[in-house]
Amino acid sequence: MENFKFYSPTQFVFGKDTERETGELLANFGAKKVFLHYGGGSIKKTGLYDRIIESLNKRDIDYVELGGAKPNPVDSLVYEGIELCRKERCDFVLAVGGGSAIDSAKAIAAGVKYDGDFWDFFDNKASIEDALPVGVVLTLPAAGSEGSVATVITKEDEGLKRGTGSDLLRPKFAVINPELTYTLPAWQTAAGVVDMMSHIFERYISKTEDVILTDRLCEATLVSIMEAARTIVKEPENYEARATICWAGTIAHNGILGVGRQEEWTTHGLEHELSALYDMTHGAGLAVLFPAYMAYTLGEDVERYYRLATKAFGVPENHYDKRAVALEGIKRLKEFFSEVGMPITMQEAGAKKEDVPKLLQTLEKNQGREFGSFMKLNLEDARRIYEMACE
Amino acid sequence: MENFKFYSPTQFVFGKDTERETGELLANFGAKKVFLHYGGGSIKKTGLYDRIIESLNKRDIDYVELGGAKPNPVDSLVYEGIELCRKERCDFVLAVGGGSAIDSAKAIAAGVKYDGDFWDFFDNKASIEDALPVGVVLTLPAAGSEGSVATVITKEDEGLKRGTGSDLLRPKFAVINPELTYTLPAWQTAAGVVDMMSHIFERYISKTEDVILTDRLCEATLVSIMEAARTIVKEPENYEARATICWAGTIAHNGILGVGRQEEWTTHGLEHELSALYDMTHGAGLAVLFPAYMAYTLGEDVERYYRLATKAFGVPENHYDKRAVALEGIKRLKEFFSEVGMPITMQEAGAKKEDVPKLLQTLEKNQGREFGSFMKLNLEDARRIYEMACE
Repeated sequence: MENFKFYSPTQFVFGKDTERETGELLANFGAKKVFLHYGGGSIKKTGLYDRIIESLNKRDIDYVELGGAKPNPVDSLVYEGIELCRKERCDFVLAVGGGSAIDSAKAIAAGVKYDGDFWDFFDNKASIEDALPVGVVLTLPAAGSEGSVATVITKEDEGLKRGTGSDLLRPKFAVINPELTYTLPAWQTAAGVVDMMSHIFERYISKTEDVILTDRLCEATLVSIMEAARTIVKEPENYEARATICWAGTIAHNGILGVGRQEEWTTHGLEHELSALYDMTHGAGLAVLFPAYMAYTLGEDVERYYRLATKAFGVPENHYDKRAVALEGIKRLKEFFSEVGMPITMQEAGAKKEDVPKLLQTLEKNQGREFGSFMKLNLEDARRIYEMACE
Repeated sequence: MENFKFYSPTQFVFGKDTERETGELLANFGAKKVFLHYGGGSIKKTGLYDRIIESLNKRDIDYVELGGAKPNPVDSLVYEGIELCRKERCDFVLAVGGGSAIDSAKAIAAGVKYDGDFWDFFDNKASIEDALPVGVVLTLPAAGSEGSVATVITKEDEGLKRGTGSDLLRPKFAVINPELTYTLPAWQTAAGVVDMMSHIFERYISKTEDVILTDRLCEATLVSIMEAARTIVKEPENYEARATICWAGTIAHNGILGVGRQEEWTTHGLEHELSALYDMTHGAGLAVLFPAYMAYTLGEDVERYYRLATKAFGVPENHYDKRAVALEGIKRLKEFFSEVGMPITMQEAGAKKEDVPKLLQTLEKNQGREFGSFMKLNLEDARRIYEMACE
């Protein structure tokens, strides 16, 4: 086990009707004028927007709004948000939505307090030293951004998708009402499920030994996610299953499942090129890449994949052929992704095999020629993983 | 699942040599003069005291010290601490030790900022509205006080052991170096193990349905604790096992294992009378009471105990006789307690059956005549549980 630091200061307010507490939470943090950031118009159709505004009004909290956050949130909206937020002198950024709205809200919160171009943070030219406080009303469990320090933004003209992070961007509070996720399209629910499972895989697939408690917590969460996802396919309004998915998405990325070991994140890096090139849903990209990454790196540590297969994917133990068990685990993972409606090849996800050289070009720009901690990889390895994901 | 709030703002700094970071952590929180509170002299013998002082000196942090924190920390030491802390104008309270040092440190931190008698907080006559910040260097994983809002103090002259809590008492940071626990007597290690397992039981034994993710996280932690405890009996200097116990003790009580359901805490209430009357080690008292509580309340929800037996204690499933499986689970728990050196009857723990009426008298003073949420209990039920714990 490695030394680690852990804390999770975000106040998670979880359960039915909790969005009605938004105004009170904002007031507790001293907000007077909120920059309200959301995605498409769905929050207006469902009545969520009205309930939030009512809750702000009750506490006399003023607001300015900017909709339009899209999956793979883009720099242009962040620039627009920074300008509007400055002009209106907002003192708090409230994201209503999923990872996209939260990530652009975080970038806006940091950008407002920075004199230069906010992209400097994503280009490693500057580090975040001040930011407006951020709060969240979550509508899509997936990215875990509601409890994390990270934000990922796409620079459209260069096709770059990059992340940065700071403790200053960690949401002060996150309101999570599982009922708000009843109306999510099945595709989005499933893509969210893949995203949160991937956050666990990036932590679980590690060379660090002897982190058995964290291993077991990861496995418990993976089993619960898959079970709940299967329920939701049949019963989209099953509260308990929705609640499991919502809470699992949060703890998958608030750090608790990664303590004590070196984390990976190579597959996220590979996926960012897919979603930048095709504007692909992040979860869909991960669904096609993770089984390929696992199969490619299997030989690096068969024991790790054997444990994953037996403890999380229900493959019976067989000490005489651990490799076969590990492979069966990867097969079951693909079957699960397919069962919940996710693509399992790059083509199904809308990518083309002949674009692999393009993906490698931007990958090199973003990640360099070598990456990976569980297994050291270079661009040739990446090419093979992309190609395996086409099969 | 019930609505819940969760956050865990304590900065846990975990791993080898981390006590050397104490000064830096204190400086981050603006400490200038620290009230250093610890137990017996063991921290001086082991060199821990010197390493902490060296780390304070490096950051020019002044300090005043008060040793003498004992298991079942007493009000007299808290009064002494409050006076000294005020006189010396300390601005931060640093506890070095286990739950006892931390709990009296918390009471001192709150008492310093209160004009009346600090016992008012424990008597429900006042609530904590201000407190000095608290930090921890943990030497005994057990109480989970390093990440919790709670403190439990014994009023010696009246034999009352009572708790209170406030977010203001939650430690700002907790330094946890598993190596510091190598030299703990086997008895203390085991009592700590029982304590942290009990913190999980108090959350797990609940009537709230459909909290399956939290259930699995609890079971994963229980399995890991028992496995590590068995290793430590044979290899007291096994780093990984010590690290598992240390981290499990923290997450057992920082709230993450209780989210979404009604918690219990009746057995803790029953135990407080034992440790108040006999100055019994808290973990030893819990070791004799929990199996009795479980057996007594088994009929209230056999399914719950069946799940515990099969998922945490390794009893094979048998759907035809769930009660027998559940009972076998309780038997295995007792065997485990015995294996790590804990008592399994009240007499072994130093209590007398003829004192049960006395225990019931103080129980009534502290808890009233009815208590419990999983199963509603009255004083007659409590009498039977105490008596069962004598057998």
